Amino acid sequence: MKLHRRDFIKSAGVAAGALLFTHCANTRFLLNGQKKANSMILTFKPYLLQLKHAFNLAQSSRTTTPIMLVKIDFNGFTGYGEASMPPYLGESHETVAKFLAKTDLSQFPDPFRLDDILDYIDGIEENNRAAKASIDMALHDLIGKITNQPLYNIWGINPQNTPLTSFTIGMDTPEIVQQKTLEAAPFKILKVKLGRNNDKELIETIRAVTDKPIVVDVNQGWTDKKLALDMIHWLNEKNVLFVEQPMPKEMIDEMAWLTQNSPLPTFADEAFQRKSDIVKFKGVYSGINIKLMKSTGLREAHQMIIIARALGMKVMIGCMTETSCAVSAAAQLSAWADFADLDGNLLITNDIYDGVKVIDGKITLNNLPGIGVKALQPDFFD
Amino acid sequence: MKLHRRDFIKSAGVAAGALLFTHCANTRFLLNGQKKANSMILTFKPYLLQLKHAFNLAQSSRTTTPIMLVKIDFNGFTGYGEASMPPYLGESHETVAKFLAKTDLSQFPDPFRLDDILDYIDGIEENNRAAKASIDMALHDLIGKITNQPLYNIWGINPQNTPLTSFTIGMDTPEIVQQKTLEAAPFKILKVKLGRNNDKELIETIRAVTDKPIVVDVNQGWTDKKLALDMIHWLNEKNVLFVEQPMPKEMIDEMAWLTQNSPLPTFADEAFQRKSDIVKFKGVYSGINIKLMKSTGLREAHQMIIIARALGMKVMIGCMTETSCAVSAAAQLSAWADFADLDGNLLITNDIYDGVKVIDGKITLNNLPGIGVKALQPDFFD
Repeated sequence: MKLHRRDFIKSAGVAAGALLFTHCANTRFLLNGQKKANSMILTFKPYLLQLKHAFNLAQSSRTTTPIMLVKIDFNGFTGYGEASMPPYLGESHETVAKFLAKTDLSQFPDPFRLDDILDYIDGIEENNRAAKASIDMALHDLIGKITNQPLYNIWGINPQNTPLTSFTIGMDTPEIVQQKTLEAAPFKILKVKLGRNNDKELIETIRAVTDKPIVVDVNQGWTDKKLALDMIHWLNEKNVLFVEQPMPKEMIDEMAWLTQNSPLPTFADEAFQRKSDIVKFKGVYSGINIKLMKSTGLREAHQMIIIARALGMKVMIGCMTETSCAVSAAAQLSAWADFADLDGNLLITNDIYDGVKVIDGKITLNNLPGIGVKALQPDFFD
Repeated sequence: MKLHRRDFIKSAGVAAGALLFTHCANTRFLLNGQKKANSMILTFKPYLLQLKHAFNLAQSSRTTTPIMLVKIDFNGFTGYGEASMPPYLGESHETVAKFLAKTDLSQFPDPFRLDDILDYIDGIEENNRAAKASIDMALHDLIGKITNQPLYNIWGINPQNTPLTSFTIGMDTPEIVQQKTLEAAPFKILKVKLGRNNDKELIETIRAVTDKPIVVDVNQGWTDKKLALDMIHWLNEKNVLFVEQPMPKEMIDEMAWLTQNSPLPTFADEAFQRKSDIVKFKGVYSGINIKLMKSTGLREAHQMIIIARALGMKVMIGCMTETSCAVSAAAQLSAWADFADLDGNLLITNDIYDGVKVIDGKITLNNLPGIGVKALQPDFFD
């Protein structure tokens, strides 16, 4: 089933569940059959990622993540993009479909006009960062395909300088945590979520079966700066590399104190969304965790790294639960990061793209143009 | 006459006057005739720019500027670059030739490895920024030509957003200043060098024949912050847009006071060279004047703009006396600047490139790939 933009707007509020939207960039030109080849045509379709392991948080558990898959066709080239909508970010199939249906790419001559297109996209709504990222990603993929270059070439990056990626060991019973740790043999760095009563126990459970470096994500879970510092000193003795978002994002002064006194680098995640946030976090965190679904895509992520480096801050690149589409896009930039946490595509059972690989724990880029992916179901959007 | 790298090194100290250096990126491969097409081959040749008007400074006057023209050949493509060496920067035909003869591009597979190549180039010597810029420029030109895109496309910039450029009215007798002002009819913004005893007189001389906006460059000429502020207030009544490098670069505290109190934006020029300088100038100057011959080229200039914007600083793009080669390269970035001062190619009589134009006072880019230039003497390097 296909809906043109006009029809979609008429049926506003339609459940996006299984619909496919072909959003003609320039309906007028399409109707009279002219210039079709010169317009960017946006198509989007909802999809549901199936998680290998239930994602357990303190209050809830889930086994799926809704995503929106996107393509932009232009002059015989197809660029792919993706929006991932974990529930806590407030986006859904419906909000993303509504946002994408509002976009009109017909006013732009080609995908190279990134400044203009992305300023326009950013101005459609204040939030909808994942939806914005899906367009940004598809445009970058198109640019790479038109120029026949991987994005890392366009950006002048050596693809061999990619970092190791961490692999997340989800919260579970001690037995299952140890089993997951052993299953994670191909990975050289493990990631663990802390911020509950059993933090030390969880680390000791993993340390009973491996000495691999661990990175920890506290998800704002520690609210006492002195206890947080004690905990970081303890973690520092356990071969932990850094601590992500140790305290609530509002506790700026406490966080600055913690970073100044911490033997380990601290990274902002929930506290940090857009490039305009970075300058004020100098001295508050050691570094930032950049995710395409927060940054609105590759263009701002690229600029964020340049800004963070100028401020002497560290950089990590992370992801949500995503297909290899969004993970491969982020991986194109990963050689500029100190750390990568790009395992989102490895935690699902129904990926429909082939792209970046993890070999011996290291992000390993291919030489395909653009974001570096092949669609495994070429008729997905038909 | 051609010299291979090995020969050049043997004859170190040779006067570079009229020599042509073909610097084989990979002599070994060239000698056995293999893989020649896959190596980057650097060639450079000195040239002397003839100025339309003598360049008068307080202590000296000159009618020429030495430059080094550079090309890099790769896989049938040719990228052009240029180093400009006004005497006060301390570079010359000899120092640039010596630097370029040291570079060995054979260790890099292609021009897309900008991070690696430019880190290597930057590490050869501490200074030699113009020589470094010539390589950076030729690599960017190659990348544009291989991908068949102007650099503004590679960077996602709308070429129609270019600013007006100012045009410099050189110091001279009142009659000649007025004559030059009238000759500058095609330009919408005039640039004047101040910092001497007759500053007000010079402005009044120009104001007697035109109301066009003026930008002023004091070249560190004011040493009393209160007199400087009085002067800026006076200039503000004369339709002056901004003041470049009003005080000596060492007077940081005085400069911060001046910027805080100034009704006009202040720009750092002599105080500012590389991207690592920018953060410490937040609050000291309103903005920075980026020149490729200071920044070591386009890659760092591009990053500088992103950093300056994140810090809330203004940006201008300037140049030295240069051919259309280096001016066109800088113009590719100019749509990201608040102000441009890209008239270097218009002040000479023996340009040997055709590139960016000034139309109705505005920087006007063409759609040629790379830096956007055509060589007017294709056999120049033969």
